[in-house]
Amino acid sequence: MPDIKVILAQDLRQANREYATENREKFSCLGITVVNLISSPGAGKTSLLEATLAHLSGSMAIGVIEGDIATTRDAARIARYNVPVVQINTQGACHLDARLISQAMVELPLEKLDLLFIENVGNLVCPAEFDLGEDIKVCILSVAEGSDKPLKYPLVFREAQVLLLNKIDLLPYTDFDMEAFRQDISNLNPELTIFPVSARTGEGLGEWCTWLKQQVSSKKRSVAPFAATV
Amino acid sequence: MPDIKVILAQDLRQANREYATENREKFSCLGITVVNLISSPGAGKTSLLEATLAHLSGSMAIGVIEGDIATTRDAARIARYNVPVVQINTQGACHLDARLISQAMVELPLEKLDLLFIENVGNLVCPAEFDLGEDIKVCILSVAEGSDKPLKYPLVFREAQVLLLNKIDLLPYTDFDMEAFRQDISNLNPELTIFPVSARTGEGLGEWCTWLKQQVSSKKRSVAPFAATV
Repeated sequence: MPDIKVILAQDLRQANREYATENREKFSCLGITVVNLISSPGAGKTSLLEATLAHLSGSMAIGVIEGDIATTRDAARIARYNVPVVQINTQGACHLDARLISQAMVELPLEKLDLLFIENVGNLVCPAEFDLGEDIKVCILSVAEGSDKPLKYPLVFREAQVLLLNKIDLLPYTDFDMEAFRQDISNLNPELTIFPVSARTGEGLGEWCTWLKQQVSSKKRSVAPFAATV
Repeated sequence: MPDIKVILAQDLRQANREYATENREKFSCLGITVVNLISSPGAGKTSLLEATLAHLSGSMAIGVIEGDIATTRDAARIARYNVPVVQINTQGACHLDARLISQAMVELPLEKLDLLFIENVGNLVCPAEFDLGEDIKVCILSVAEGSDKPLKYPLVFREAQVLLLNKIDLLPYTDFDMEAFRQDISNLNPELTIFPVSARTGEGLGEWCTWLKQQVSSKKRSVAPFAATV
């Protein structure tokens, strides 16, 4: 019999919490705002991230951690925006975890960053269960996915602080029921901030980026006494 | 300390394989063709299933197992087609497993069925890893998700026998690169049968349903000697 190392599911969750706490403390000390982008495959995480980077260019220092099961395609897309980017390939795993983030952090010039985006693996279910040490979970939903998704995949809509409702340029060609959607969101998570956007046309990106800038300023202010001594 | 029961990940996989084998043997004895529908949230599994049920109505006896994290919305939609349907709520789990299917099988009039659809939880990643005892894995991808998905989520495209490329009515409004898509599929899984379809307009459903009927006939023939003695 080979000597098989068995990792208990219970232990994995506990280990993740410990890594997430460490990551969060490090980010807080450095005054970096960290955003965890979660969505189904194809909802537009990378396109929205590209549009956001273009919009924020020059106003702050941004880094990116790209999570994918395979390929470095997304990291290659992001690198064109002249931001430091690290690719994590999960090799089959359906979500990022805090330990992977702590490994990626070593590869980034953290002390120079104001804002760090983590693009999770495309999956509306599992990533919502794993704290990475981020400040803000952003759920991205494409209108092409349908307005019934909050009720069917409630966890991520409950856990998120922001919802980017993407591809609103496709609204006229879909059966998306905006009224029912907003009602379901309001029942699940009344605090959720919704930005209707289109990475393709640029609609709504201004509002989203203004909101992001406010978060970054606010986090910086919270560590100002420490930052002043550096 | 509470008495916590810990289930090892390793054991779960082995248990799933055993349940899947039992399910497959039972389906084979009864000559039922079993189709496992896998996609991201919002790719159109339920809509395509509804359109397929309408198309096949009267030609054979069909049953449905609906998998969702929460709600019985999809089962309610399917029940309108006068087919026996069982809803599985995974209560957070991101995929169906073979044990859940074996529990659902007890609630269905299996001996009367020719075809059983299993609609998996909306997730392009994890469901591909769990054999349910099905004959055919069908991957559904919406063109709104983008043409790069086979390279980014390769497992399901490798495991599937059929790909339903849905929402082709949205093609003119997206950047979907059909040539690159077909090339990537051909590299990953040259045996994959692709049906471009639209649950909304009905385009392509005839070809898909004709193919399904052939599978059902062929499975029935394979158990004909046994069936004759029933």
